[in-house]
Amino acid sequence: MFTKLLIANRGEIAVRIIRACKEMGIRTVAVYSKADAESIHVALADEAICIGEAAAKDSYLNQERIISAAIASKAQAIHPGYGFLAENASFAKLCKKYGIAFVGPSGELIDRMGDKDAARRLMKASGVPIIPGSGILENVDEAKKAAKEIGYPVMLKASAGGGGKGIRLVKTEDELEQAFKTASSEAQQAFGDGRMYMEKYIYPAKHIEVQLLCDEQGHVVCLGERECSIQRNNQKLIEESPSPGVTKEKRAELFEAATKAAKAVGYVNAGTVEFLMDRDKNFYFMEMNTRLQVEHPVSELVTGKDIVKWQIRIAAGVELDCTQADIKVRGAAIECRINAGGVGKVNFLHIPSGPWVRFDTFLYQGYEVPPFYDSMLGKMIVFSSTREEAIRKMQSALCELVIGGLPNNIEDQIDIIRDPVFHSGDYYTDFIKNREG
Amino acid sequence: MFTKLLIANRGEIAVRIIRACKEMGIRTVAVYSKADAESIHVALADEAICIGEAAAKDSYLNQERIISAAIASKAQAIHPGYGFLAENASFAKLCKKYGIAFVGPSGELIDRMGDKDAARRLMKASGVPIIPGSGILENVDEAKKAAKEIGYPVMLKASAGGGGKGIRLVKTEDELEQAFKTASSEAQQAFGDGRMYMEKYIYPAKHIEVQLLCDEQGHVVCLGERECSIQRNNQKLIEESPSPGVTKEKRAELFEAATKAAKAVGYVNAGTVEFLMDRDKNFYFMEMNTRLQVEHPVSELVTGKDIVKWQIRIAAGVELDCTQADIKVRGAAIECRINAGGVGKVNFLHIPSGPWVRFDTFLYQGYEVPPFYDSMLGKMIVFSSTREEAIRKMQSALCELVIGGLPNNIEDQIDIIRDPVFHSGDYYTDFIKNREG
Repeated sequence: MFTKLLIANRGEIAVRIIRACKEMGIRTVAVYSKADAESIHVALADEAICIGEAAAKDSYLNQERIISAAIASKAQAIHPGYGFLAENASFAKLCKKYGIAFVGPSGELIDRMGDKDAARRLMKASGVPIIPGSGILENVDEAKKAAKEIGYPVMLKASAGGGGKGIRLVKTEDELEQAFKTASSEAQQAFGDGRMYMEKYIYPAKHIEVQLLCDEQGHVVCLGERECSIQRNNQKLIEESPSPGVTKEKRAELFEAATKAAKAVGYVNAGTVEFLMDRDKNFYFMEMNTRLQVEHPVSELVTGKDIVKWQIRIAAGVELDCTQADIKVRGAAIECRINAGGVGKVNFLHIPSGPWVRFDTFLYQGYEVPPFYDSMLGKMIVFSSTREEAIRKMQSALCELVIGGLPNNIEDQIDIIRDPVFHSGDYYTDFIKNREG
Repeated sequence: MFTKLLIANRGEIAVRIIRACKEMGIRTVAVYSKADAESIHVALADEAICIGEAAAKDSYLNQERIISAAIASKAQAIHPGYGFLAENASFAKLCKKYGIAFVGPSGELIDRMGDKDAARRLMKASGVPIIPGSGILENVDEAKKAAKEIGYPVMLKASAGGGGKGIRLVKTEDELEQAFKTASSEAQQAFGDGRMYMEKYIYPAKHIEVQLLCDEQGHVVCLGERECSIQRNNQKLIEESPSPGVTKEKRAELFEAATKAAKAVGYVNAGTVEFLMDRDKNFYFMEMNTRLQVEHPVSELVTGKDIVKWQIRIAAGVELDCTQADIKVRGAAIECRINAGGVGKVNFLHIPSGPWVRFDTFLYQGYEVPPFYDSMLGKMIVFSSTREEAIRKMQSALCELVIGGLPNNIEDQIDIIRDPVFHSGDYYTDFIKNREG
């Protein structure tokens, strides 16, 4: 096992990883930007190295400085968390070049899953259901032809896409030409690659994802599925496991598809296969995330597996200690993301605790949240024996939570948790849009 | 199920019970003394009723006022927590008289287990191993005769005893007469009952206890055992589950004995059977606690069962949803009690979180802890897959915990958690005395 690990991240996920390392007896190295000198991950780690200015490109995205910090501190491994360099293939390759274990899959694998159109074709060839769609569309005429075959509405997507860029919903043929041109040029600008393809628009849809752990020895286990359909502008707000919309039979099919996907690419480490599921419970491969996800705690609570600890163990070559048959999904877990609505100093902080209530955060009393990074302040996660009790527990935990001095979305989250449509479980990715009219 | 429940307690356990009720959809009524107006249990409950002055006898021990509060607020049930009225048979009977469900066993049962000598005899008759000892000793001569048969050292104990009163360790015959007289008169003063009996002094001993849940339908399940040998002056400081000193075979014997004990008395609700275990792993019944215990969370974390929720369900007549075969004890959990070493105002509070870290407390930023009640500020509880990892996790959690403005024992607990004797698992109730020399 590693004796020292560098965390190439900040915020709650850096804290989460440091705590896992302490539990495993691994010394930790934090890196931080000048804006983060007062951040708690700096205080909690055994060592901390300043790697540059506030702007992420000068610090948390600066590959050379992070590698230098790892070499200087003799860290044998780097955990990238999520965001920043977590899905950066060249960073994973750079780690390998310098003999540092990257806690995640290989750079080659990140590359392969990052090309959305290629990943789609690979999945199709491996027997994983994909959304009906086209290959690369050379021009508007090809796009029109493809849309006619698929049937409107369709989604135009950039092959190199991500983060909602280069994507257009097209409802009728009239809209196609304009959408194709703007999306392609947006993709060209954002990714240096304007190639487009098209998919049938699945609506209404549930966002369902399967959490995987895959070891170097070739074992794959699914740690249940998560439903993440409560989103605003493609940003997840609430996640739960298990999904109230997935039957036992459908779950078995989802696990089979996710396992096929992982095996098709020889996946290693923690990963997530994202699917869209329509009202008739047909599901389609969307993409594979080659990293730890924000919402991993709900899977931890229903399976009892610590995903971060397993990521580190797998990166060190340790074999999984369980097979799929050993994984029992029990009870119900929900996560609410608590986001800032502005900047400020935390002048009062009250965090609920008690059985199976967990608030993963980097806040502390008196902390001034720097304005340079993402707006997530913490994640409230609860677990109970039934979904009904988990919902009440979340409501109660959110009512107890106080973050004074910082505008935040706690009240909004309470409203959503109380919404009868959320209670019904019969909700889709348009939930927020429908609520807000 | 009840729709409204009154909590006849304060501090962390009142908060714990209120949270369980919120999760179950039960409205809550807090009671509080004038000294507790700013206590968090008052704020968290749906209703709160002031029941008197600071002194416990005028408030939390005032049975009539608590019953009146329950009647006035139309609460259908009363949860007594631990301490105060939790093992008061007359209070349980008073609840029954007024048609209010007491969350615990019947008054008759509390009476029966409160008479230590009678409980001992009952257990012996039921085939539960008890410490070799005498019956009631009428005088010093009888005591001398009994001690000769048992062999020195012996423990003289008050039949009505509890809380360390009326107990004397007697090492030689020379000490016996004096010890008998002072212990008996102490017991007469404390309990109005000077009757004494004698037990062999088991030394060194481990304090091992079995957590039970028993429903009205006659089902009994053991939620694993806890080891509570880390004590100072008979006050538990650290508890863990499972015990590192209990083998699989011995565990089965302990569960069998505890189940026998529960069935012998027709026990209903949550209860704990306490045993002493010697170096050769012989164990002996010590007493049965007819209430929720401070250290119940370690059993919750290794079994996944919420004991407080089950107490309430059982009191409402709900049948257990599991048999002994369904109870799987997984991983390792440890609890450290965080006690105040003086009074003061909490001017800074930082509580660690993350996976399977739980701090049950009633503290909040700015709270002035009243000096009238017990010194426990909170309980740090961690769970991990192995005892080794749980120990490191506890160390890390305690290092993160900051309670500013109040003298406390966090540092002492860190020292104990780091002690190689604690790590070895081969520790006994004399651990603290040996450390402190």
